[in-house]
Amino acid sequence: MADPRFFTNVGPFRLDRLAEIAEADLGGTADPARLLQDVAPLDTAQADDLSFLDNRRYIKAFTGSRAGACVVHPDFAERAPEGMALLVTPEPYKAYARIASAFYPPPKRDGGIHPTALVDDSATLGEGVWIGPYAIVGPNAEIAAGVRLHAHVVVDAGVRIGERTEVMQGATLSHCLIGRGCLIHAGARIGNRGFGFALDPGGYVDVPQLGRVVVGDAVEIGANATIDRGAGPDTVIGDGCKIDNLVQLGHNVRLGRGCVLVAQSGVAGSSKLDDFVMIAAQGGVGGHLTLHAKAQLAAKSGLMHDIPPGETFGGLPAMPLKDYFRLVTLWKRQLKTMEKKKDG
Amino acid sequence: MADPRFFTNVGPFRLDRLAEIAEADLGGTADPARLLQDVAPLDTAQADDLSFLDNRRYIKAFTGSRAGACVVHPDFAERAPEGMALLVTPEPYKAYARIASAFYPPPKRDGGIHPTALVDDSATLGEGVWIGPYAIVGPNAEIAAGVRLHAHVVVDAGVRIGERTEVMQGATLSHCLIGRGCLIHAGARIGNRGFGFALDPGGYVDVPQLGRVVVGDAVEIGANATIDRGAGPDTVIGDGCKIDNLVQLGHNVRLGRGCVLVAQSGVAGSSKLDDFVMIAAQGGVGGHLTLHAKAQLAAKSGLMHDIPPGETFGGLPAMPLKDYFRLVTLWKRQLKTMEKKKDG
Amino acid sequence: MADPRFFTNVGPFRLDRLAEIAEADLGGTADPARLLQDVAPLDTAQADDLSFLDNRRYIKAFTGSRAGACVVHPDFAERAPEGMALLVTPEPYKAYARIASAFYPPPKRDGGIHPTALVDDSATLGEGVWIGPYAIVGPNAEIAAGVRLHAHVVVDAGVRIGERTEVMQGATLSHCLIGRGCLIHAGARIGNRGFGFALDPGGYVDVPQLGRVVVGDAVEIGANATIDRGAGPDTVIGDGCKIDNLVQLGHNVRLGRGCVLVAQSGVAGSSKLDDFVMIAAQGGVGGHLTLHAKAQLAAKSGLMHDIPPGETFGGLPAMPLKDYFRLVTLWKRQLKTMEKKKDG
Repeated sequence: MADPRFFTNVGPFRLDRLAEIAEADLGGTADPARLLQDVAPLDTAQADDLSFLDNRRYIKAFTGSRAGACVVHPDFAERAPEGMALLVTPEPYKAYARIASAFYPPPKRDGGIHPTALVDDSATLGEGVWIGPYAIVGPNAEIAAGVRLHAHVVVDAGVRIGERTEVMQGATLSHCLIGRGCLIHAGARIGNRGFGFALDPGGYVDVPQLGRVVVGDAVEIGANATIDRGAGPDTVIGDGCKIDNLVQLGHNVRLGRGCVLVAQSGVAGSSKLDDFVMIAAQGGVGGHLTLHAKAQLAAKSGLMHDIPPGETFGGLPAMPLKDYFRLVTLWKRQLKTMEKKKDG
Repeated sequence: MADPRFFTNVGPFRLDRLAEIAEADLGGTADPARLLQDVAPLDTAQADDLSFLDNRRYIKAFTGSRAGACVVHPDFAERAPEGMALLVTPEPYKAYARIASAFYPPPKRDGGIHPTALVDDSATLGEGVWIGPYAIVGPNAEIAAGVRLHAHVVVDAGVRIGERTEVMQGATLSHCLIGRGCLIHAGARIGNRGFGFALDPGGYVDVPQLGRVVVGDAVEIGANATIDRGAGPDTVIGDGCKIDNLVQLGHNVRLGRGCVLVAQSGVAGSSKLDDFVMIAAQGGVGGHLTLHAKAQLAAKSGLMHDIPPGETFGGLPAMPLKDYFRLVTLWKRQLKTMEKKKDG
Repeated sequence: MADPRFFTNVGPFRLDRLAEIAEADLGGTADPARLLQDVAPLDTAQADDLSFLDNRRYIKAFTGSRAGACVVHPDFAERAPEGMALLVTPEPYKAYARIASAFYPPPKRDGGIHPTALVDDSATLGEGVWIGPYAIVGPNAEIAAGVRLHAHVVVDAGVRIGERTEVMQGATLSHCLIGRGCLIHAGARIGNRGFGFALDPGGYVDVPQLGRVVVGDAVEIGANATIDRGAGPDTVIGDGCKIDNLVQLGHNVRLGRGCVLVAQSGVAGSSKLDDFVMIAAQGGVGGHLTLHAKAQLAAKSGLMHDIPPGETFGGLPAMPLKDYFRLVTLWKRQLKTMEKKKDG
């Protein structure tokens, strides 16, 4: 069970209510009135807990689980241990997300401005805004209703933040417009001057960075991520993008809707990611490239060329993933040949 | 036009004045008295705007641009659209930098110490120093004239900061001496104890890290970058170095003048980069290596050996870049051969 | 000598006392009563200084050093310059660590709560706790004896921190239990909600992250590192782990005892590192993998499979290191063949 120091469980729920929440079908023999107290991982769940199976890798944990109920894909339903109630759905992870959110809803939190917060008189604050201790809001900033700025957050002059966006501890925002319902994690740095300078025998000459960072709605930006403002055009992050910890976006980068950038990946200046592009962990995208819609880059890969729509690239340098896998197969064969020669 | 919430335009300027600022030649038919209101990217610039062409990749945007004036290399001047005034120079990016800085000069800012800043009585402050809210300056710190310490900056005991250096929000400095005219971005961590420990059956034994970080003049250090202090010798960063976001420098690393380390790159302990070395994004340099003057390491490459002066290495493991490119060509050929075999 | 602005030398020490501290043997001709004033690197040490030789790479510096005394492995003792006193030990780095700690012991520091620190009334504080300026301790947090929380640290509700742990400037802790004697560097982010969401045509559906981060004793966590809390299970870091700057640990990652993760490395969700696993700089470990005890991953490598106990993997994708080295040798041979063909 989730540690009550950190999470508040509002259960129990009846099984039929959970099926409704999850938009899942209740498995044949299950008692709709059965009460579930909590959610839990397959290996630690007990008779009062609901768990889920989403990854084929964990089937053993599923077949041996003592969970009272489990959200599961129809393909695996037959392998459930006896007595386990099933919520059957083609999308078990999403269904679990909804159920877990029912047991552990975000706490109701009041607005208010901590007495140590420094809010410039010219800033505008919507209804129910909460501003934590030692946070700072600069001149002419516009903070919409329901925004939450945690301790030590700095919102610089002129920044606009949309409704219900939450900014975690110590994040700093400048030269940016942020949409609604975003979550910006601790220590994220948004709107820094980009890495723009011209060569000169007397030293590098800084190029003024005159663009902004424009962030859509429902965007998540990870802890200690860094997003530079544009050099002239803006740096743009489309609605629903998920940006993980320690990700770097250079100036003028444009992300479409729903892009996913996993931890420690980076995109160099002026590259463009169309809708639903995915960059896996530690991936790197060179400058001035286009990744077309639904393109994917595998983990640790280094991209020097555009990716056509829907294709997955991987490797260093990145190539179509199937080519990369064939290359790796070739390497393995070559290693085996070397081995034989040595033995022979 | 740059968002007036964030940037203040002090234009207009006459074309001949801009040519003077840029040290560029005014193209033949242009009217020297023509007034330009702003700078703008090629694709959005209008008749009152000045733009620039620096990258061959954007020639189409140039030939189709409506910009009233453009800074351009002599090689491309002929391809300008009709009616566009030209400022011709072999260094268009630098020329643009100067013009943009004329339109958008850094704001004049007064000194002063915010009432919430905590400055130790034993610290010394030069003339015109500005210290922002909730910033902290420790005992015996020396803050020279014109330094700006933004909100939540922490300057630990004994740290020295040279004239006109600016430290952005939430950066923390300890065990370091910083030069003049530097820019240290938000969340940078300078002077942490390095990763030094000895093995022992009872657990690792920490080795005291007794060096400093010594930073020259006009150095830029990116957001959330981490620079450990020396273990005994110092960690040294030469004048004019440009260090991007999320870069890591281990203890005892020594950078010469004008080195450029692009985002998410890292240099392991005790390596030495001579003057004007460049590490591209996500590059990694092993420990105890020397990169001689003007050496370059390509993006995402992993270096295990020294690089001779002026050479460029790339790949994993890094080798002379032309070898790496030949290797990649070989791989492509091998893939094609495999393809044929499969088909044949 | 270490800069007295930052470090306090409590020497001198007699040579025989240093031998005792280091558990080393005093070389034949050395005068046990000789006084040493300081520690210093081989190349700058003078007659009053003690230095050390740990890395074969620095033998030249050793044979040419003016250090009055040196900690050295028996294998190299014979090559010492005349007149240098020797402390001979099979573990010179550890011996040096102890001597350097004798010269520069951690300063005695009193407890106390800075008047600007905000400590919730329901938090419990042990004896001798020190809480710096603008630090924040939330409701029901438990801060054990001797803990030091530096400026701007945020300890969220319910967090527990064990005895003598030190948290550097601006680090933020939530949803976590931290052991004794840990060192958490500036800007580290512990306990963020992990990167967990389910796909949905209407946008990603966030999965509640109901686990914690559980950190053992004597753990070091680097500057600006990010450690996400578990999704249901906990993220776990065993006793004595050393985690460097800018490292990323995803949700549910479990580290055994004494693991070492060098700068900018990352471990994806739900992977398990058994005791004494080592990940070199910029290494990446995929999700749901197991690295068995004493496994190692070379720098910049990308791991897609488990590593058996005690083995070292490297390359992209990572394979047994000796295979990777053979592959690199093959590539070099192929390059040479291409060269010959071109010439022939």
